[in-house]
Amino acid sequence: MSQGRLIPADPFDVDPWGVIEHGLDLSAQARSESVFALSNGHIGLRGNLDEGEPHGLPGTYLNGVFELRPLPYAESGYGYPESGQSVINITNGKIIRLLVDDEPFDLRYGELRSHQRSLDFREGMLRRSAEWTSPAGRTIRVESRRLVSLTQRAVAAVEYQVEAVDGPVRIVLQSELVANEQLPGGDGDPRAAAVLEAPLMAELRHADGTKAVLVHRTRYSGLRVAAGIDHLIEGPERVDITAESSEDQGRISATTVLEAGQKVRLVKFMAYGWSATRSLPAVRDQVEAALTAARYTGWEGLVAEQKEFLTGFWADSDIEIDGDVELQQAVRFALFHVLQAGARSEERAIPAKGLTGPGYDGHSFWDTEAFVLPVLTYCMPSAVNQALRWRHTTLPMARDRAAQLGLAGAVFPWRTIRGEECSGYWPAGTAAFHIGADIARAVVRYVRSTNDLEFERTIGLELLVETARMWRSLGHHDAVGRFRIEGVTGPDEYSAIADNNVFTNLMAQSNLRSAAECATRNQMEAAALGVDTEEAAAWRDAADKMYIPYDETLGIHPQADGFTDHQLWDFENTPPEKYPLLLHYPYFDLYRKQVVKQADLVLAMQVRGDAFTDEQKARNFAYYERLTVRDSSLSACTQAVMAAEVGQLDLAYDYTAEAALMDLRDLGGNTRDGLHMASLAGACIALVAGFGGLRDHTDSLSFRPRLPSGLRRLSFSMGIREHLLRVDITHETTTYTLRRGGALPLSHEGEPLRVERGRPVSRPTPVVESPPERAVQPPGREPARRHGQAGVAQQNPTPDHLAAE
Amino acid sequence: MSQGRLIPADPFDVDPWGVIEHGLDLSAQARSESVFALSNGHIGLRGNLDEGEPHGLPGTYLNGVFELRPLPYAESGYGYPESGQSVINITNGKIIRLLVDDEPFDLRYGELRSHQRSLDFREGMLRRSAEWTSPAGRTIRVESRRLVSLTQRAVAAVEYQVEAVDGPVRIVLQSELVANEQLPGGDGDPRAAAVLEAPLMAELRHADGTKAVLVHRTRYSGLRVAAGIDHLIEGPERVDITAESSEDQGRISATTVLEAGQKVRLVKFMAYGWSATRSLPAVRDQVEAALTAARYTGWEGLVAEQKEFLTGFWADSDIEIDGDVELQQAVRFALFHVLQAGARSEERAIPAKGLTGPGYDGHSFWDTEAFVLPVLTYCMPSAVNQALRWRHTTLPMARDRAAQLGLAGAVFPWRTIRGEECSGYWPAGTAAFHIGADIARAVVRYVRSTNDLEFERTIGLELLVETARMWRSLGHHDAVGRFRIEGVTGPDEYSAIADNNVFTNLMAQSNLRSAAECATRNQMEAAALGVDTEEAAAWRDAADKMYIPYDETLGIHPQADGFTDHQLWDFENTPPEKYPLLLHYPYFDLYRKQVVKQADLVLAMQVRGDAFTDEQKARNFAYYERLTVRDSSLSACTQAVMAAEVGQLDLAYDYTAEAALMDLRDLGGNTRDGLHMASLAGACIALVAGFGGLRDHTDSLSFRPRLPSGLRRLSFSMGIREHLLRVDITHETTTYTLRRGGALPLSHEGEPLRVERGRPVSRPTPVVESPPERAVQPPGREPARRHGQAGVAQQNPTPDHLAAE
Repeated sequence: MSQGRLIPADPFDVDPWGVIEHGLDLSAQARSESVFALSNGHIGLRGNLDEGEPHGLPGTYLNGVFELRPLPYAESGYGYPESGQSVINITNGKIIRLLVDDEPFDLRYGELRSHQRSLDFREGMLRRSAEWTSPAGRTIRVESRRLVSLTQRAVAAVEYQVEAVDGPVRIVLQSELVANEQLPGGDGDPRAAAVLEAPLMAELRHADGTKAVLVHRTRYSGLRVAAGIDHLIEGPERVDITAESSEDQGRISATTVLEAGQKVRLVKFMAYGWSATRSLPAVRDQVEAALTAARYTGWEGLVAEQKEFLTGFWADSDIEIDGDVELQQAVRFALFHVLQAGARSEERAIPAKGLTGPGYDGHSFWDTEAFVLPVLTYCMPSAVNQALRWRHTTLPMARDRAAQLGLAGAVFPWRTIRGEECSGYWPAGTAAFHIGADIARAVVRYVRSTNDLEFERTIGLELLVETARMWRSLGHHDAVGRFRIEGVTGPDEYSAIADNNVFTNLMAQSNLRSAAECATRNQMEAAALGVDTEEAAAWRDAADKMYIPYDETLGIHPQADGFTDHQLWDFENTPPEKYPLLLHYPYFDLYRKQVVKQADLVLAMQVRGDAFTDEQKARNFAYYERLTVRDSSLSACTQAVMAAEVGQLDLAYDYTAEAALMDLRDLGGNTRDGLHMASLAGACIALVAGFGGLRDHTDSLSFRPRLPSGLRRLSFSMGIREHLLRVDITHETTTYTLRRGGALPLSHEGEPLRVERGRPVSRPTPVVESPPERAVQPPGREPARRHGQAGVAQQNPTPDHLAAE
Repeated sequence: MSQGRLIPADPFDVDPWGVIEHGLDLSAQARSESVFALSNGHIGLRGNLDEGEPHGLPGTYLNGVFELRPLPYAESGYGYPESGQSVINITNGKIIRLLVDDEPFDLRYGELRSHQRSLDFREGMLRRSAEWTSPAGRTIRVESRRLVSLTQRAVAAVEYQVEAVDGPVRIVLQSELVANEQLPGGDGDPRAAAVLEAPLMAELRHADGTKAVLVHRTRYSGLRVAAGIDHLIEGPERVDITAESSEDQGRISATTVLEAGQKVRLVKFMAYGWSATRSLPAVRDQVEAALTAARYTGWEGLVAEQKEFLTGFWADSDIEIDGDVELQQAVRFALFHVLQAGARSEERAIPAKGLTGPGYDGHSFWDTEAFVLPVLTYCMPSAVNQALRWRHTTLPMARDRAAQLGLAGAVFPWRTIRGEECSGYWPAGTAAFHIGADIARAVVRYVRSTNDLEFERTIGLELLVETARMWRSLGHHDAVGRFRIEGVTGPDEYSAIADNNVFTNLMAQSNLRSAAECATRNQMEAAALGVDTEEAAAWRDAADKMYIPYDETLGIHPQADGFTDHQLWDFENTPPEKYPLLLHYPYFDLYRKQVVKQADLVLAMQVRGDAFTDEQKARNFAYYERLTVRDSSLSACTQAVMAAEVGQLDLAYDYTAEAALMDLRDLGGNTRDGLHMASLAGACIALVAGFGGLRDHTDSLSFRPRLPSGLRRLSFSMGIREHLLRVDITHETTTYTLRRGGALPLSHEGEPLRVERGRPVSRPTPVVESPPERAVQPPGREPARRHGQAGVAQQNPTPDHLAAE
C-alpha cells in the first residue's frame, strides 16, 4: 500500500508563537504574502514588501469593496445570475520606496546580506529586518514593523527605519498611496480570482505636508473608496519633505543624509473607508478623522493597544499542545488568522480567504457558518453576532432569490460578497441549499452559547423562520408520508443534484425544528413575521417525517438516494497527478460514481451525531474513508473529528495536522491566492471536537476527550455565556476548570458534571483499549504525513496536488 | 376542465398539394420565409423576396458552412467545449433588385395591388406574382419562379419577368451576389441562433458579361465559399447590360424600356461550392462548371428535371388522407421539406432546421436519426445512407470526445455542425448519451430495410461497434449483477443526470445486441476493428442484464430511478404564459419534480414496444400524459403513436395534427428561425406508425392499423429493399398492395401475411370496441385544437406559447 503524500518541510522556523522567515524565496513570495497578511476583518494587507516590488501578488482589501463583472454562459438559463462580484485590490497605502544614493532599494539587485520577517501572534505585527548593499556598494539596514489595528478599525500603520551602515549616504523615502496597481495575470486556474484591471475611477486627490488622501469610485458597483496616509518623520539631520498627488497616486517624499550609524525613522498611518451611499466629503472626512485618531494614539500607542487586545484573546482562547510544536505553531497561526478575519468584519461577510488574497473572487461561502463561526462562537462571540447580522442584512436579496426560484422564505447565495448569488454553475452553487441550514445552525449555536436573547428576537428568529420556510417549500411529502428533499447538492461537490442527501436532510430537520422552537419562545415576534401555529406545526411535521435513506444490505447510510448503487471510482488507475479530480475529469463522470470530494455523510455524523448509532458511525466512517479524496480543504478537519469519535486516534491526528498545515506548508498549492480560513478554523475544530470530543448539540457542552499517541497534553479554553471554561487533557486525566462565571453543567463521557470556580473537576481520560483497524483511504489519498513520522515515504514529496478547495 | 389551446387559422390557402399565400403580412414575413424555403440539402434559400427587402431574416445557407465562436462559461469545467459552431448566412445570390423609372420596387412604398406566393410540392418551385404601382404612379407586374435544383446539387435558379402595365417605363434590373449581408439582431431567445456579423473575408471577385463570381473565406473556421451567378436576359427592345464587382458584391445590371404590355425576362443561374481544403481556383472552377451545366440545361430544363424528380418521389412516397384536407396539406408539406432537407446532404449533417433558417445555430441533434431518418428510410434510403456516412466521418472526433470523457468507443456530440461537441450545458448536452443508440438504431433500420450489406460492412458495423463500446464503458454491473447506466439525461430535458433512464437503458440494450449481431455477421471486419468474441460476449451480457426500473406500487415504469418519488409539478398554478417552462423556471426546479418536457418513457414504448406488455403501455401512457407539457416539438408525434397503440385514437389524431401543423401554423412561435424538421417528420411517423401501426423492430414489417373518426382513409407507400408496398386503410378494410418486387412477408395485427404483386391482400381494420377514457394532460397542455373541431375554446387563441423545442 502506498504511504501517501509527504508534507514538505516547514519553510518557516517552527516557533510556538510565531512564523519566522529567513531570506527571501522569490518563487514562494506570493505564499509568504498570504501567510504574513495582516487584517482586522475590515482592512486586509497582504504581506507585500514595503517597497512594493518584487511582489507575488499585491493586495490591499477592504471588506465589502468589489467590482461587478458579467457572468457569461454558453447556454443561458432562467435564474442564472448575470453579474458576478469580484474583490478588488484597492488603493495601496503600504508602499514605502527607499532610494539609497538614488539607487532604489530592490532586493533583486545589489546584495541582500540578510532578510528576516516574522509575525508574532501575541503582538500582531509583521516585523522585517534587512541588511542590503546597493549595487554601488552602500550598505543600509532596514527595520520595519507593520500592523493593522484590531482596536481602531479604519487604521493600519508602519514604522520604517533606515540605518546607514557606512556613510554618508543620501536617503530618499517615498511613502505612497497607489490606486489601480498593475496585477500579474491569472494562471488559468478557475479557482484563482478574475483579475480586474483598473477598477478605480479617481474622484479626489489631495496631498499636503505629511498627508495625502485619494478618493476613488468603482466603475460598475459604484462604491466610493477613500484612503489616506499621514506621517511622522524623524532624522538626525535636516529632513526635507514634499507632498504630491496625481489621480492614482499620493506621495510624501522625505530626503535626508545619514552618516554611518545614523537612522531615519518614518511612521506611516493609513486609514481607509468606503461607502455605497455616503457623499465624497463624508467618506473623505471619515478617513481624515481616523488618521487624526491614529496620530493621536501614536505608533507606540497602536502597538500597545494591539498587544493588549491580543493578550486578552490568547488568555481566553489559546489552544495549547504539548508534544508537537509544529501543531502548536499551526493551531495558533490558525486561531490568529481566524481572529484577524472576523475581529472587525462588522456586518460584512467573512470571505473564504479572509482578507488575505483574491482567491475565490473574495467570496463568502458556507465556510463561514459551517467552519469559521463554530470557532469564533467560543472565543469571539461578538464576531459571530456581526457575521450573522451581515447575513440578516442580505435577507431581502435572499427572499428575492427564493421567489425567483419558486420557493418560500429565503435562499442564501452559494457565493457572494454583497449578498446576491454569484455562482455561475448552479449544480455546484444554487443547488447546495444546505447553506441555509448551515446559517441556521450557526444562529442556534450562537444563541445557545451566549444567551443573547435580544439577538435571537431581532436577528436569529427571522433567519430561522425564513430558512425553515425555504425547506418546507423545497421538500414534499411522498405517498407514504415521508418528507423528501430532492435535486440538491450536499457538501460533496463530486455528487450533485441528488435526492435526499443525508447531510442536507438532517440539517434541514434541525433547521425546521429550531425555527419552530424559536417561534414558540418568541411568539409575538414570530407572529409579526407571519408565523402562526399552523406554519410552525408544518415545520415540526416535516422534520419528524424527514426521510433519511439507509442501505440495509450494506448496513450504511448512502450519502444520497442511490449513491451506493453507483459505480466505484477507479482509484487504482487514477495517478497522483490527476488530483484534484475536477481539473482532470468531467463532472458527469464524477457525479455518477462513488467518489467523494469532501466529507458529506461524515460531516452529517459530526453535526448530527444524535441521528446515528455508534455502530453506524463506525461502519459509515470506514465506508466513506475508502471513497474520500479530499480535493477540498473542507474535509480533513471533519474526517479528523469523526476518526477520533470512532477511535481512530492516529488517523485523526494525521488529518488534524493536514488541516492545520494547509497554509503554512501550502498543501493545496494555492496559498498564494489567500489562506484557507475554513481549514484553519477546521484545525481548531479537529482538536477541540476531535480530541476534546466537544459536542454542542444540546444546551450543555459534552466532552469525550481522548488523546492520540503523538500528543502529551491538549488544553483549551472556551467562553460560554458568562463562563470561561478551561479543559485540560492528558492521557491519564481530563480536568475541567471554571475560570469565570457561576457553576457550569457539562458532561464528560456522558456523565453529567458541574464545575464551579475554584473547584476543578478531574476525570480519567478514556483509553481506546483495542483501537479498530485503521480505516483505508483511496490509494495515494491517505492523509499527508510529516517529516519524521513513522512510515514516511520519500518517493512522493510533491505537494502541488494535495486536496484544496 | 380547460379546453386547451386553439390552433390559429391557416394563414395560407388549404390546398392538398401546396401552400398559397395571398397578400403580404410584414409582421409574419420571417415565418413565411421559413415555410417557403427551398433546399436540396446542400443549398438552402429562405423565401426572402427577390428584391431582398423588406425581409424577416435573410438566409442563404450551404450545408456544412459555419463559423467558430467562443463558448464562454461563468465557471468553466474540464471537458467543456471551448468553441461553438454557428451556421452563417453566406453569399446571397437570390437578390434581383428592380427599379421602375428609378424608383426601387419596394412593397413598403407605392401601392401593392396584388401579391401572391405559392409553393407546389409537385413542381418544387416558389412562384410569386405581384402587381405594384410605384409612388410615381407607374404600374408593373412581376412574375418570378425560384428553384433549388434537386438534380443539380450546386445549382439554384430564378426566372424573373417584369411586365409594364402602362408605359413607356424604364426598367433597371440589378441581379446581385451579396456577401456579409446585415442581419437583424437577436431577440434574446436562447433558442435563436447567435448572430455572427460579417463572417466572410473576401478572396476573389470577378464580374464580366452576364456572370459574376465571389470567393470568400470564413475567418476562424477557414472554409472557402464560392458563389457564382450567370444570366439570360430577354427584352423586347435594347437591353444594356453591365457587370461590376466589389469585395462583397457582384452585380449584373440590365436596363431597358418597356411599353405597356411588354415584358423583360431574366433567368438567373446560381451556383455554390465550398471546401475546407481545396484551393481557391479549384473551388471557383467548381462553381463556374456548375453554372455552365445549369446554362446548358436551361431554365425549362431545370424545371422539367425538378418535376420529374418530384413525380417519382410522390409516386413512391405520398401519404394520402381522405377526410381532412388540412392534414393532407400538412403531411405533404412535411414530406416535401423532409425531402428537401435530406435529398442531397451527401455526407453532411441534416440540421434540426434543415437549411430553412439559423435556429439552433444550424446544429444537428438526435432529431436526425430519431425522427428524420425513420421517414427517409422508406422513401429515400440514399439520403439515410449519406446522413449515416456523415456520422461515420465524424468518428475520429467522437472517439476523441470519448477519450476526453474517460469512455471507450465513440461519444457523438449532442449538437454540432462539423462533428465536435458544441453544447455549452452538459446536463442537457453531453449527458444525453442516448444519441449514440439513436444512431445505432438508424443504422440497423437502414440495413434491415435496404439489405445494403456493403454499407453494413464498411460503415454500419463500425458505428455499432463504437457505440456499443461506449455503452459498455458507461454502464457497470452492480452487486447483484444488474447492468446500470447512471448520471445520464434521456430525451426529457426537464429531468437530467438521472440513473437508469428507461429509454436510455432500453436503447443501449438494443445497441449492444445489434453490435454483437452485426459483428457475428461480419467477423472479419469486426476483427479488424479489434472486436473479439470476448468483447461481443460482454456486450450481450450487459444487454441481457440491463436494469430497467419498475415501480411495483404504481404499476408503472419510472422514467428513471426515483422519478415517481419526486414531487408533482404544480400544474394547477402554472399559467399558460409560463410555458415553455424552461424560460420561466430554473432547471433545478424542473429537474427535481415530475414534469416531462417531451416523450421519454413514452418514446421508449414506441421504439422498444417489445419491452412492455400491453397493460404496461396503457398504464404508463396514462401516467405520463398527466405530466407531459410538450415544451418540445419532439413530443406530439410520439404521443400520437402511443395514443393510437393504446386505443386513444381521437387523442392520437389531435397530436398528429399538432405535429403536422407545427410550422404551417407556427405553433411554437419560432418558425421564423426555421422549420422543425423532426416535427415534420414526426407528423409522417404519427400517421404511419400511429394510425398505420407500423413497427419495424424485426425483419418483417408489422402493422396494426386503426383510423380515428376524423379520417376516412389513410394510404401510404413504403420502399423496403426491392419492394414497394402500398398500405390502404379505411375504417373497414386495410389493403396491402405490392407495387414492386417479389413476395413480401409482413404482419397485420399479428397475423403473418405474404403480399405478392398483382395480388393485394385485404383484412378488416380492427375497431377499438370500447375506447378507453381519454387520457388527461396537464391543465392547458391538452393537444392544441383546430378551428371547427368540437369543443374548441375561443378564449385562448394565442399560439405563442405552445410547446416548441
